[in-house]
Amino acid sequence: MTETTWFWIGTIGMALGAVVIFAVSKRRTQDEEAHTTVHVVVTVVAACSYLAMAFGQGGRELGGRTFWYARYLDWTITTPLLLLGLAMTALHGAHRRPALVAAVLGADVLMIVTGLFSGLSDDPTHRFAWFLVSTGAFLAVYAALFGPLRREAALRDDRRRRAYVRNSAILAGLWGVYPIVVALGPHGAGVITATTETGWIAVVDLLAKVAYGLVWSRDSSRITDDDLHRDEITPVPISDHPVPTNGQRS
Amino acid sequence: MTETTWFWIGTIGMALGAVVIFAVSKRRTQDEEAHTTVHVVVTVVAACSYLAMAFGQGGRELGGRTFWYARYLDWTITTPLLLLGLAMTALHGAHRRPALVAAVLGADVLMIVTGLFSGLSDDPTHRFAWFLVSTGAFLAVYAALFGPLRREAALRDDRRRRAYVRNSAILAGLWGVYPIVVALGPHGAGVITATTETGWIAVVDLLAKVAYGLVWSRDSSRITDDDLHRDEITPVPISDHPVPTNGQRS
Amino acid sequence: MTETTWFWIGTIGMALGAVVIFAVSKRRTQDEEAHTTVHVVVTVVAACSYLAMAFGQGGRELGGRTFWYARYLDWTITTPLLLLGLAMTALHGAHRRPALVAAVLGADVLMIVTGLFSGLSDDPTHRFAWFLVSTGAFLAVYAALFGPLRREAALRDDRRRRAYVRNSAILAGLWGVYPIVVALGPHGAGVITATTETGWIAVVDLLAKVAYGLVWSRDSSRITDDDLHRDEITPVPISDHPVPTNGQRS
Repeated sequence: MTETTWFWIGTIGMALGAVVIFAVSKRRTQDEEAHTTVHVVVTVVAACSYLAMAFGQGGRELGGRTFWYARYLDWTITTPLLLLGLAMTALHGAHRRPALVAAVLGADVLMIVTGLFSGLSDDPTHRFAWFLVSTGAFLAVYAALFGPLRREAALRDDRRRRAYVRNSAILAGLWGVYPIVVALGPHGAGVITATTETGWIAVVDLLAKVAYGLVWSRDSSRITDDDLHRDEITPVPISDHPVPTNGQRS
Repeated sequence: MTETTWFWIGTIGMALGAVVIFAVSKRRTQDEEAHTTVHVVVTVVAACSYLAMAFGQGGRELGGRTFWYARYLDWTITTPLLLLGLAMTALHGAHRRPALVAAVLGADVLMIVTGLFSGLSDDPTHRFAWFLVSTGAFLAVYAALFGPLRREAALRDDRRRRAYVRNSAILAGLWGVYPIVVALGPHGAGVITATTETGWIAVVDLLAKVAYGLVWSRDSSRITDDDLHRDEITPVPISDHPVPTNGQRS
Repeated sequence: MTETTWFWIGTIGMALGAVVIFAVSKRRTQDEEAHTTVHVVVTVVAACSYLAMAFGQGGRELGGRTFWYARYLDWTITTPLLLLGLAMTALHGAHRRPALVAAVLGADVLMIVTGLFSGLSDDPTHRFAWFLVSTGAFLAVYAALFGPLRREAALRDDRRRRAYVRNSAILAGLWGVYPIVVALGPHGAGVITATTETGWIAVVDLLAKVAYGLVWSRDSSRITDDDLHRDEITPVPISDHPVPTNGQRS
């Protein structure tokens, strides 16, 4: 396997993922429409990033290796969107505690951008210093996911709370792989080759974007089914027409 | 006419357009204030982009021709704003179906950014591949304009519905000229010269930003006049003071 | 003092500022949470910008001098956030008159970006032309601060009105120093050296971000104390739990 093969696997996997997520997702309520938008945009942006790298674009020669900054442009857009999806469920709508959501997304973008600075630094000391700053921002994201956002999720109904707890754990686990792979890769300790690094990142990317998006599509649909069976929560339909209930509501 | 002459025509036309749109627009309600902001920001950003190109900035030598990436930075900001204006009228406020608005704006930005990638690609195959991706995103924008957003507009009052239907058709028609001009231009088939391409784009830009902004300014004012004559819709004034009615309300 | 010493002073000052602002700020209501987020993000982003410059990154050789574009990336993020903090208080929440807030933030970003264009221009005429455009956008920001936003603030309660009037005056005063220093510096009239320019900017940056953030932290806390003692305004708690009143409410 060459690095370019991995880039093509990423391109095709993300593009197919976008089509499948759009096809299987229901869009009966604003909640479902929001989750569908998040996961389709995430996979489409990632597909474009992989296509650029497959074309040999979005990389820069740096100390005899190619540093693919295209990944970081992708992540600057896609990782805040994935966190927004979690926050929407924890808060039952993104308008509650907008400053908390902004803080989490801000810490996330800082993590990606200082990670990019690390990758673009020639000097190993600078590279390590930025890696530490990026790791600090990463820990702030973790702190928000398992602190205030989890406490907010605990106030929601059963389906939302369980979806948040499970999916935040999946995302936190998968995201933890990236800094380890980069630290072991040719820009860090040099223990693994560039191709191995790219392969690992492609696999984790597909899990964290396509597989994770499919999990959300199912959860989002179940949450809506529940809402339609209860009286205390009124689902917001996506238009002035009533929500189609598929015979679920008496 | 040289290319630079066209850039100066663009600069002066957009700057004058901003002043005229600001002067003729009323700002009695939040609705009118939002439309004014959209069209003034759009023309000011375009004026800055044309000024940069008139100064010989914002371009890059690429295969013996100058590729003006400044246009694409302009369009990344201005085209989502123009779509936001349409969406606000279709949805009677941008807060309804935020995910639909985000999806349309996301597809639009993807169209511009992959169009930029096409222009920056040296290899003709890559250039064509990105052009196809950009065209796909363009079709998604069209699908939203003539699908869900048009259905939403059909639920509004007469003035809003008609303004949406007419103005979305104008915008869709004018925007269709850009990919044709770029495809015929020196970075595509090479049928027309760089100066002809720049002239066409300048004319369409002025129509799609200044003339279109003036049409919206009139429509937005008529919509507000109607709202002030009816009882079922309460216009949101831009401050805690009551909306000035110019004697239109009994 | 060398330029690099100033950059380290900026890095440490901003990083300490972020820690202190986070430590002293209360986060009982959404209002307090929003102000804390604004000022912590502002100081953290500025700390990263100063760290980059201390590492010799984020600069570009231009006509025998180093032009630090990192400052402008910082300001593109931090200055709109500082204006957002003022707008939130003037409007009692950022959702009132969103188009006014968008217009002020848009003018501010235009001011910074055209200031960057000025700094990146080789030709002195171009540099001066962009400086004029940037100054025009700056005057538009001033016009909004002392016009519509001040009128909005006058409609609020006593604490909010006074906080707005004082803090907008502090910000407007401090921001006025930047264009003067840049105009006198090596890219302008050349009256002061690059080190003197960097020193002045570092001092004003620390005042406008750290000291100003501490002032807001105190004001935001007093506004909340007042809200908790009155009945006509219900503070929005940051969670579904009631607002802790520290015994202030009977």
